[in-house]
Amino acid sequence: MATIVFCSVNKTAQATVRRCSMSHFKRLASSAASRLTLSPSSCSSKPLTLLPGSRWLSRGCGVRFVSQGTAGRAAGCGRARRGALALSGAAALTAAVAGFLANADHFQRADMATKAPRAAAEKEPQGDISERCRGFMSPPVTEIGVLQESSGEMRTRMEMLIMETQADFCNALQEVDGGTFKVDRWQRNEGGGGISCVMQDGKVFEKAGVNVSVVFGNLTEEAAKQMRSRGKVLKGKDGKLPFCAMGVSSVIHPKNPHIPTVHFNYRYFEIEEEDGTKQWWFGGGTDLTPIYVSNEDASHFHRTLKEACDKHHPQYYPDFKKWCDRYFYIRHRGETRGIGGIFFDDLDSPSQEEAFDFVKSCARTVVPCYLPIVYKHLNDTFTEEEKAWQQVRRGRYVEFNLVYDRGVKFGLATPGSRIESILMSLPLTARWEYMHEPAKGSLEAEMLDVLRNPKEWV
Amino acid sequence: MATIVFCSVNKTAQATVRRCSMSHFKRLASSAASRLTLSPSSCSSKPLTLLPGSRWLSRGCGVRFVSQGTAGRAAGCGRARRGALALSGAAALTAAVAGFLANADHFQRADMATKAPRAAAEKEPQGDISERCRGFMSPPVTEIGVLQESSGEMRTRMEMLIMETQADFCNALQEVDGGTFKVDRWQRNEGGGGISCVMQDGKVFEKAGVNVSVVFGNLTEEAAKQMRSRGKVLKGKDGKLPFCAMGVSSVIHPKNPHIPTVHFNYRYFEIEEEDGTKQWWFGGGTDLTPIYVSNEDASHFHRTLKEACDKHHPQYYPDFKKWCDRYFYIRHRGETRGIGGIFFDDLDSPSQEEAFDFVKSCARTVVPCYLPIVYKHLNDTFTEEEKAWQQVRRGRYVEFNLVYDRGVKFGLATPGSRIESILMSLPLTARWEYMHEPAKGSLEAEMLDVLRNPKEWV
Repeated sequence: MATIVFCSVNKTAQATVRRCSMSHFKRLASSAASRLTLSPSSCSSKPLTLLPGSRWLSRGCGVRFVSQGTAGRAAGCGRARRGALALSGAAALTAAVAGFLANADHFQRADMATKAPRAAAEKEPQGDISERCRGFMSPPVTEIGVLQESSGEMRTRMEMLIMETQADFCNALQEVDGGTFKVDRWQRNEGGGGISCVMQDGKVFEKAGVNVSVVFGNLTEEAAKQMRSRGKVLKGKDGKLPFCAMGVSSVIHPKNPHIPTVHFNYRYFEIEEEDGTKQWWFGGGTDLTPIYVSNEDASHFHRTLKEACDKHHPQYYPDFKKWCDRYFYIRHRGETRGIGGIFFDDLDSPSQEEAFDFVKSCARTVVPCYLPIVYKHLNDTFTEEEKAWQQVRRGRYVEFNLVYDRGVKFGLATPGSRIESILMSLPLTARWEYMHEPAKGSLEAEMLDVLRNPKEWV
Repeated sequence: MATIVFCSVNKTAQATVRRCSMSHFKRLASSAASRLTLSPSSCSSKPLTLLPGSRWLSRGCGVRFVSQGTAGRAAGCGRARRGALALSGAAALTAAVAGFLANADHFQRADMATKAPRAAAEKEPQGDISERCRGFMSPPVTEIGVLQESSGEMRTRMEMLIMETQADFCNALQEVDGGTFKVDRWQRNEGGGGISCVMQDGKVFEKAGVNVSVVFGNLTEEAAKQMRSRGKVLKGKDGKLPFCAMGVSSVIHPKNPHIPTVHFNYRYFEIEEEDGTKQWWFGGGTDLTPIYVSNEDASHFHRTLKEACDKHHPQYYPDFKKWCDRYFYIRHRGETRGIGGIFFDDLDSPSQEEAFDFVKSCARTVVPCYLPIVYKHLNDTFTEEEKAWQQVRRGRYVEFNLVYDRGVKFGLATPGSRIESILMSLPLTARWEYMHEPAKGSLEAEMLDVLRNPKEWV
């Protein structure tokens, strides 16, 4: 099976690196023989430290992996941050936050109390924060001065990561599409805000949305109850639980039915209890929704995720793959939304540093997971029937997002949410045909079969 | 303002009556001067008893209207009905039933303890049941022999009414479209079944669905809890509450953006308590979702409903109009789904006979509410932009149905539901544009303004 070693398109890397990886994408698309295969040696002029293959090198530190412990403690999160955690108000949570609260009844902790090699730390880009911010789609949500003062804190490091992830992904999509993202900065009255990047009706992408949000305030009672229901006992001061939440999320719907839809979301949550204790955790995932089965695409996608996971814990991929299949399930149809990927929540172990490292690996795997598949199918021709099947599948995507997705549901139910950012995940167009059932033996039936019986791809 | 007196298209009426009314529809469509105006005298060769105008003649009986009483008692519902109420099982409820359980937090009883004229009883068609059944889209759900044996019972009378309503509406739509409904009979494992009629991608209608269901079994605990939460105390035997529920529901999405979408649903519920007491109630409504504002259409639609309501109680129209605006509200958008109509639930007064009479009036008002509007706009030309706006509004329709509609939500959450019948209400195509906002002063902005500020139309 072909394996991709992908040249990083990290914004902070030299421009030549980006050009290298992009030319490779294009070569990939035109060359059937080299499909989904790209060796690091073909990027020989680039520093190898930028290649995921070297980043993810296991160092076998043998750290004991504790899975069932209490929420981790954030060492440096208690500092005054221009009133971030002191803000009260309606505490209406926006889309990104909703993701944190989204999986109350999906709470599950993998049985991971096994010895695991400690991953090599993901390198954080060097350079001054204000310099790094220049590459973003917009100035970050938090003022640059504040970020500079707190450059070592997890909140700052995570905000820089999600901004970088947004920029990397948007740039990669713009390069393949030729279009430009519309960038909207928005404020949340109760504290924080976000940056929504949307490209609509492009050459390649029907609708592409990449959203960052960084919000803070006090948890509502409803939200706090959801927290508790998944096992987190949180004691507020006068019923109030100051929180800070941030994340990057994206859904990409291409025009060509042979290019799959992709979704990812990586997020970080901090909450302050009555006694000043801070709890924190990470969540996220990346999953693929093809319209037609391609074993090669699916294997590439899952293998890329598995490689990112395996460097951190051998149980991460198998557990988070299962969790993903279970979460993205359209119950009333008896189908998964797509062919899955990984999904996790409540990650607060083995240490904040290591959990962040894992999330960094995941976030940096989005482009190498998806872009090669886009380039591969860029010039695939398609029929009207294939387009119609894509539209039917889009309808199912809408059903999942509006009926089951807890982030969407929570966002819609929360006054003050930015609805357009929550619903940018919906496709530009969708279709509902009464009693649609593909012909036996058709490629459409093959897709349905995979959605009804999730497979192992690696 | 123009008033419509509509020639009945009741299946059981003579064929000449149908022809008369149809020719009137067509005349309406082609004549701007006579738009939405049709006098009974132009149907002079028809028996006047078939005209709603005479059916609804107030007789001023001065019956005391009791509104806050306990649920009505069904006199004749206790008879053996081939195990209808005795059936146990998973008690999964299907789409139509869901409607009965759908409005738990919309419980509202109009303050109607006033003297009101008693309406003239809606005539029920004469003739043998098996003869009447011949005009239906399919044989009724309940065996004809069973219906004949129990022709005086409310269940039978309601099943005949919903079957007739389905046939009348389908026939009227087929006549204007030229297409044919696909008729699916389906069984529910736990008891009962339904008849779904769907016409897709017709000449006039993008998607037209008219569904009947008649189901029975035992209420689930969840459903019973929902019942209780709206004030009905229901005591089951060993936790089981035998029930019987039936209804007709329909959503019609036309192709032309100048022809509005219409929805209606009329339903009847019976539930048997531990001591053998039966509770019953009716619910339903009809509402319109135009893509562009037409004061004339809206006035016609609401006036037709008001006339049907006023014959039964002066508070029905104002109360049920408000209820409709409140129910069909897309909270996260701050918009109603359409321009409303009427919506009611828990109707169990002043007597079973009178409540049924009211529901009969409503069901028979569907065709005269909607078809004149269809004919009026049949040949309206439209632009690509108008079609795109229709698609955006279709997206909002999907949002309401999947996020808020309690019937849909309940149906999707209930194992054993017939998903295709529940989701036949979704349009064939829909569209979600990021940050869509019509230009100031445009016709699209005018529509949005009406949806954001519900109006009084009569």
